[in-house]
Amino acid sequence: MTLDEAKQLDAADPLAFARERFALPEGVIYLDGNSLGALPAATAARLREVVERQWGGDLIASWNAHGWIDWPTRIAAKLAPVIGAKPSELLIAESTSVCLFKLLAAAARARPGRSTILTQQGNFPTDLYVAQGLAALLGLTLKAVAPEQVLGAIDEDTAVVTLTHVDYRSAAIHDMAALNAAAHAAGALTVWDLSHSAGAIALDLDGTGADLAVGCGYKYLNGGPGAPAFVYVAERLQDELRPPLQGWFGHAEPFAFDDDYRPVSGIRRFLTGTPSILALAALDCGFDTFAGIAMADIEAKARALSQTFIDEVEARCGAEVSLASPRDPASRASHVVFAHAQGYVVMQALIARGVIGDFRAPDLMRFGFTPLYTRFADVVRAAEILADILATRAWDRPEFRERKAVT
Amino acid sequence: MTLDEAKQLDAADPLAFARERFALPEGVIYLDGNSLGALPAATAARLREVVERQWGGDLIASWNAHGWIDWPTRIAAKLAPVIGAKPSELLIAESTSVCLFKLLAAAARARPGRSTILTQQGNFPTDLYVAQGLAALLGLTLKAVAPEQVLGAIDEDTAVVTLTHVDYRSAAIHDMAALNAAAHAAGALTVWDLSHSAGAIALDLDGTGADLAVGCGYKYLNGGPGAPAFVYVAERLQDELRPPLQGWFGHAEPFAFDDDYRPVSGIRRFLTGTPSILALAALDCGFDTFAGIAMADIEAKARALSQTFIDEVEARCGAEVSLASPRDPASRASHVVFAHAQGYVVMQALIARGVIGDFRAPDLMRFGFTPLYTRFADVVRAAEILADILATRAWDRPEFRERKAVT
Repeated sequence: MTLDEAKQLDAADPLAFARERFALPEGVIYLDGNSLGALPAATAARLREVVERQWGGDLIASWNAHGWIDWPTRIAAKLAPVIGAKPSELLIAESTSVCLFKLLAAAARARPGRSTILTQQGNFPTDLYVAQGLAALLGLTLKAVAPEQVLGAIDEDTAVVTLTHVDYRSAAIHDMAALNAAAHAAGALTVWDLSHSAGAIALDLDGTGADLAVGCGYKYLNGGPGAPAFVYVAERLQDELRPPLQGWFGHAEPFAFDDDYRPVSGIRRFLTGTPSILALAALDCGFDTFAGIAMADIEAKARALSQTFIDEVEARCGAEVSLASPRDPASRASHVVFAHAQGYVVMQALIARGVIGDFRAPDLMRFGFTPLYTRFADVVRAAEILADILATRAWDRPEFRERKAVT
Repeated sequence: MTLDEAKQLDAADPLAFARERFALPEGVIYLDGNSLGALPAATAARLREVVERQWGGDLIASWNAHGWIDWPTRIAAKLAPVIGAKPSELLIAESTSVCLFKLLAAAARARPGRSTILTQQGNFPTDLYVAQGLAALLGLTLKAVAPEQVLGAIDEDTAVVTLTHVDYRSAAIHDMAALNAAAHAAGALTVWDLSHSAGAIALDLDGTGADLAVGCGYKYLNGGPGAPAFVYVAERLQDELRPPLQGWFGHAEPFAFDDDYRPVSGIRRFLTGTPSILALAALDCGFDTFAGIAMADIEAKARALSQTFIDEVEARCGAEVSLASPRDPASRASHVVFAHAQGYVVMQALIARGVIGDFRAPDLMRFGFTPLYTRFADVVRAAEILADILATRAWDRPEFRERKAVT
């Protein structure tokens, strides 16, 4: 595909308007929205309003006057069409890791007598760490099997099956409906991490019978660095489950200042402490970037972008790189990884040329395609630059080796 | 004291300059900085910088380029002189409630074979809820005794003593040194909640032998609504303790993406998930309001302000209100409560007259004195207005009864 052909696709793209919802820097092809979503155009003004007029001007009265007290649920409700849930099933809190701990613990306690938390090897590391920590605390066993063996490993001892829905390296997608069904048939609960799914592909948590889920606010959802996480608890389970991190924001009457914990009915019992209002305001603007856009359209564009990238890279770079994501578009979410023995420094060379992706050990160059602001022209240009870097060995420079990787 | 005499005190106040570090609304006497600290003058511009230039402009590279990765410890280190700790003993994370859970769990696990978490009745409710949740999860017993009985209740079965250092209603102060010594003599650990102490009175965590502590970022520390909490872990304990909320930010090599959790040495193992950078930026500005000011001076002014308020209220209001804080200034922190049978509506009437305090059930009107921005003239004027409201029964209006209380 030529750059001109790509620009024609952009001109015909029904989602092209959404790029104006972001404040993107000039001269950068940003293919890392799966690690940190770009800044929405509305966020800076919203934060000024919340900081200067609400906090600064109305001070403590803002908890009522500006409805801060309801933001964790009111803002979360905007995710309902994005992930296929009811508004009353959603909440914003802390971080993906902390929320995962809450959900896993609540689920494990709802299945007394069962001793296994089942997951996959190579799950996103923090998911494994959280589960390891919980298992040690409660005397449970964390069983990690190969991803394709999870379905068959669910048994009568399984309390919880916990998986990241979309693999953070390969973008491979687990079959949520099949795994929910198998877990339920065995009497287990499911806890999904949607960090690389939500906002990237169409989800139907209610329709697939999911029990519990958590996901990251700062990737495809554009909530800002370290944005709080979202939590999903199926309505049928909310009053049965009891998260172990009991705090005043989950109390039936937080301002009664009772000595004894009495969880509120519904999703708010998954709150713990006072939430960051500034972080919630920014996350709200992130969620608003999806307003009025169907996830089916976003998914379709995600598939088209990532397929274009694969085609163009393979056509231009040949055997020097090898696709490490599923080749079948229906089996991938919205990012793509290519393996290259010098992947780390090749990625540094790309970044130096204005193409921002990231690297995952041992040899994976990862490129995220965010349908709200990535253009087909960006994708073709990124493939051209990668091909040029490989053809000229432009990556073979000491400063690229010395650069410290953090994210 | 006349208003003119109070203004003379303000003119001679060596801390008067600090009021310029805040952006306070006109026409308000804000005596609720112990619930939500006022907006620092520097915060709005700092957030613009972090949002627009860092996140918006530098995107994912900001984790290195702007040092975001180190903010939880770099910012926390500014608290060292405020609470009497080493910089390496401090961290910022999530919320007071979540951090308290981490610390209590880590402490309880470090004392295997002991089954009691000891606290006081009437502790700040979320502290009780967190401890109740943890006790239920681990099969421990939470024992709550009257505040003056805590010292004598520490025994060989006590794993952890956990107390809020300053009572959120009365401002009564626990004797930290004596309780640390008694706990250690019995082989127990201490976990302090400093939410109503830090930034209000001088603290010496290291000097008094404290083990662990947590505190609120949005009260006297001016970090903004729902600001994250700070965590203190005495250096001698850091590598012995293992918090159960294991996340990638506490891993020895978070970007190695290992399947197995290996806690980093030192305070960072008390991190869990990715922290909110926006919330950290605001908290940093809050901490900066203490720069160059000795806590002994802040404590001295806090005592002078609160004693002036008590004297002026008692002189003007007589027996209609009764002091519910300790009368001895050395036994109080920086807020004062007066009981009045109609306290809820009296407080609403005060707020309507521009004096912002808050109410705590059943009958307590609470007034916080924040030495960095409260003036003696504010204190005298607040006492005058309270006296006027009581003398005229201006509180006896239906709209005050109907007003919803949240915070």
